[in-house]
Amino acid sequence: MDLEQEGLHPSLSAPVSESMNFLNEVAQRFPGAVSLAAGRPFEGYFDLDDVHRYLETYRRHLSERLDGDEAAVRRTILQYGRTKGIIHELIAEHLRVDEGIVVDPEAVVVTVGCQEALYLTLRALRADDRDVLLAVAPSYVGVHGAAQLVDLPVLPVRESPEGVDLDDLVAVVRQAKAAGLRPRACYVIPDFANPSGIRLTREVRERMLRIAADEGFLVLEDNPYGLLGDPSGPPTMKSLDTDGQVVYLGSFAKTGLPGARVGYVVADQRVTGATTGQDLLADQLAKIKSMLTVNTSPIAQAVIGGKLLEHGYSLRDANSREIATYRANLEQVLAGLEKRFGGPDFPGVSWNSPTGGFFLLLTVPFPAGDELLELSAARHRVLWTPVHHFYADGQPRYVIRLSFSHLLTDEIEDGLDRLADFVREQSAAHREQ
Amino acid sequence: MDLEQEGLHPSLSAPVSESMNFLNEVAQRFPGAVSLAAGRPFEGYFDLDDVHRYLETYRRHLSERLDGDEAAVRRTILQYGRTKGIIHELIAEHLRVDEGIVVDPEAVVVTVGCQEALYLTLRALRADDRDVLLAVAPSYVGVHGAAQLVDLPVLPVRESPEGVDLDDLVAVVRQAKAAGLRPRACYVIPDFANPSGIRLTREVRERMLRIAADEGFLVLEDNPYGLLGDPSGPPTMKSLDTDGQVVYLGSFAKTGLPGARVGYVVADQRVTGATTGQDLLADQLAKIKSMLTVNTSPIAQAVIGGKLLEHGYSLRDANSREIATYRANLEQVLAGLEKRFGGPDFPGVSWNSPTGGFFLLLTVPFPAGDELLELSAARHRVLWTPVHHFYADGQPRYVIRLSFSHLLTDEIEDGLDRLADFVREQSAAHREQ
Repeated sequence: MDLEQEGLHPSLSAPVSESMNFLNEVAQRFPGAVSLAAGRPFEGYFDLDDVHRYLETYRRHLSERLDGDEAAVRRTILQYGRTKGIIHELIAEHLRVDEGIVVDPEAVVVTVGCQEALYLTLRALRADDRDVLLAVAPSYVGVHGAAQLVDLPVLPVRESPEGVDLDDLVAVVRQAKAAGLRPRACYVIPDFANPSGIRLTREVRERMLRIAADEGFLVLEDNPYGLLGDPSGPPTMKSLDTDGQVVYLGSFAKTGLPGARVGYVVADQRVTGATTGQDLLADQLAKIKSMLTVNTSPIAQAVIGGKLLEHGYSLRDANSREIATYRANLEQVLAGLEKRFGGPDFPGVSWNSPTGGFFLLLTVPFPAGDELLELSAARHRVLWTPVHHFYADGQPRYVIRLSFSHLLTDEIEDGLDRLADFVREQSAAHREQ
Repeated sequence: MDLEQEGLHPSLSAPVSESMNFLNEVAQRFPGAVSLAAGRPFEGYFDLDDVHRYLETYRRHLSERLDGDEAAVRRTILQYGRTKGIIHELIAEHLRVDEGIVVDPEAVVVTVGCQEALYLTLRALRADDRDVLLAVAPSYVGVHGAAQLVDLPVLPVRESPEGVDLDDLVAVVRQAKAAGLRPRACYVIPDFANPSGIRLTREVRERMLRIAADEGFLVLEDNPYGLLGDPSGPPTMKSLDTDGQVVYLGSFAKTGLPGARVGYVVADQRVTGATTGQDLLADQLAKIKSMLTVNTSPIAQAVIGGKLLEHGYSLRDANSREIATYRANLEQVLAGLEKRFGGPDFPGVSWNSPTGGFFLLLTVPFPAGDELLELSAARHRVLWTPVHHFYADGQPRYVIRLSFSHLLTDEIEDGLDRLADFVREQSAAHREQ
């Protein structure tokens, strides 16, 4: 029986869905290309022995907690389990140690990566077609994807050199309300945003929280990279959150192990009128999870749990080698861009200088869309990400995202050489037009 | 910031969501009760050493496949990975060996348990508010849950002693079409259904496939228990499927390890008008997955992959001890029911006699709703499942579901004694009314 594309859910024909597909597919077609596109953590320290050891570390911890009841230990790790997860207490302790966030472990839902955390939150908040989400544009592709699965429109908020234009945020919220819409939340990556790499100052964070409180919407704080930056940076928005304005979305993909596919959401808001005795937003998210994935693999949770235990709950400590690598890569890319593009040969080329994270933005003097990415991959064997994918509208822009997290020193030099050839060629072609 | 229940998605206030919550909560409040409610696999043979060994078995297999490229092995198991999964070829081989299903591995999407497979399928098929799902009533709670997350109505089809009333199926489909609706698929567990335990005959399967072809809807075949029954039973509907009518939903929770949370969907239907080069329904489901959970933990997949490899792809072989346990438990429960309820003391009590699976249905002479379950738990310390939860309507019925899969011999005798006390008490109370 054949099906027709137009008879399937509209999210499957939306630009964002095509985006993710297209980017994966280009990467697969050109395996020999240097990828300045993939937002993957550095894999030079990956070791399968760690997985075995983490599992055993967690098993011993659990055995102590359960007074040596080995049948209960096996049941916890191998049987169906608690919907909200089994490492919630370890995660709460990690948040206290690394982020200064104090939270009731019952407000933590362990999820299948941060993407499921985002889905659960958006699914809960989208009650009917008046509901809308706010997000700084450009923003992480996954937020557009999750929003489309629940038919939730995303209203763009202007970016600024500080990360977010707060005047525009207020204007967008008020316009939406005037049009009868309900802005439920604003999605933001305050630390080293994807794609821009920008880190919000403490002042911007505090002003944003005040706006959220005044206007009555939640802040969805997504923080996959914060721990990998300078520890003297501004505090997380959740740690500044005195009024329960912030839902915190956590990932272990960059700091734990991507292959565990474990993330979490902290949702300590109270829900009034709840029909059950459980009145945290986390309990509502768990209800959705029970209909979506039932629970997060406790084996995968045990792997992450063991890593937390081995490092005194500190993923900053666990990632000391990786942090040094990311810092070195960032410095090498910034120096490499200056060396190649800093002279007079490249008018119209500029870039920003994040202080951490996996990404930065390079402005080029031509609209850099998908066709040019394909040409870049085929002719110059270098991949990068067209920024229109983060606007979910398919309109080529004069900006590309460069990622450097997973690369070795030689790959960075090679990749930047190839990129310079590509930019030179396309700049000339554009001038001739 | 407080939120209001009525400002959240309606699925969170629906009976099915309350059901799952209520049943979990009762089980937690009465940990000393014997559970004839939990649909869990037998855990007597669980062993964490197996997990370590399965991982290593899979690692060695991958190393051979990748010509000893250990960096690629580590990347495959520990890094972000292929959306459709890494053990699709092993699953296709398992389906050939155990189920006689021949399928292109590219049509397999590895999922976070069968529940995510169900969600992906329903999300794809629900294009607008004309779309509806059919399901034999009573049916698995999770299908109602997943359908509610995508706002997809479920039209009930009458059950019959053969499992499904095919005349009613045709009638429901035609009525729906006449009302301007689009019946997209019929959900069914052909082998040892949850909750009824019924196994469809080959003839019923073939007739149902013809109806689906004639009326233009898909069959969603969910098969968590089939492998644990008599191997001389009827073939899976997917193996009889010559016209691509069947989407096959697979679970490793009962035959692999529940703690791995790995399932899959086989979706080999062609999608015409697809905007990308990938034209299998599986590719569309993968697009949704990329927006929902990104990929299924490759560590968890490796655990299941190792188990498949160690048993020549046969989970029937891997579960020989479990299969003997389930058969013995079923026989013990049927004999125990006859012993306790077979005499003249229990008018109005009867039960069906499945030939496999985890469940059977007990008819009682009183409406057995949630209040009576609480009383049963508190006073008689035995848990069972009110069948109204499988109708998603909250109306108490004169039937309860008994599960026996996870119990030891003594627990079964204890549980049935307590159940007999409860039924005796309530039968008397009901007669007095």
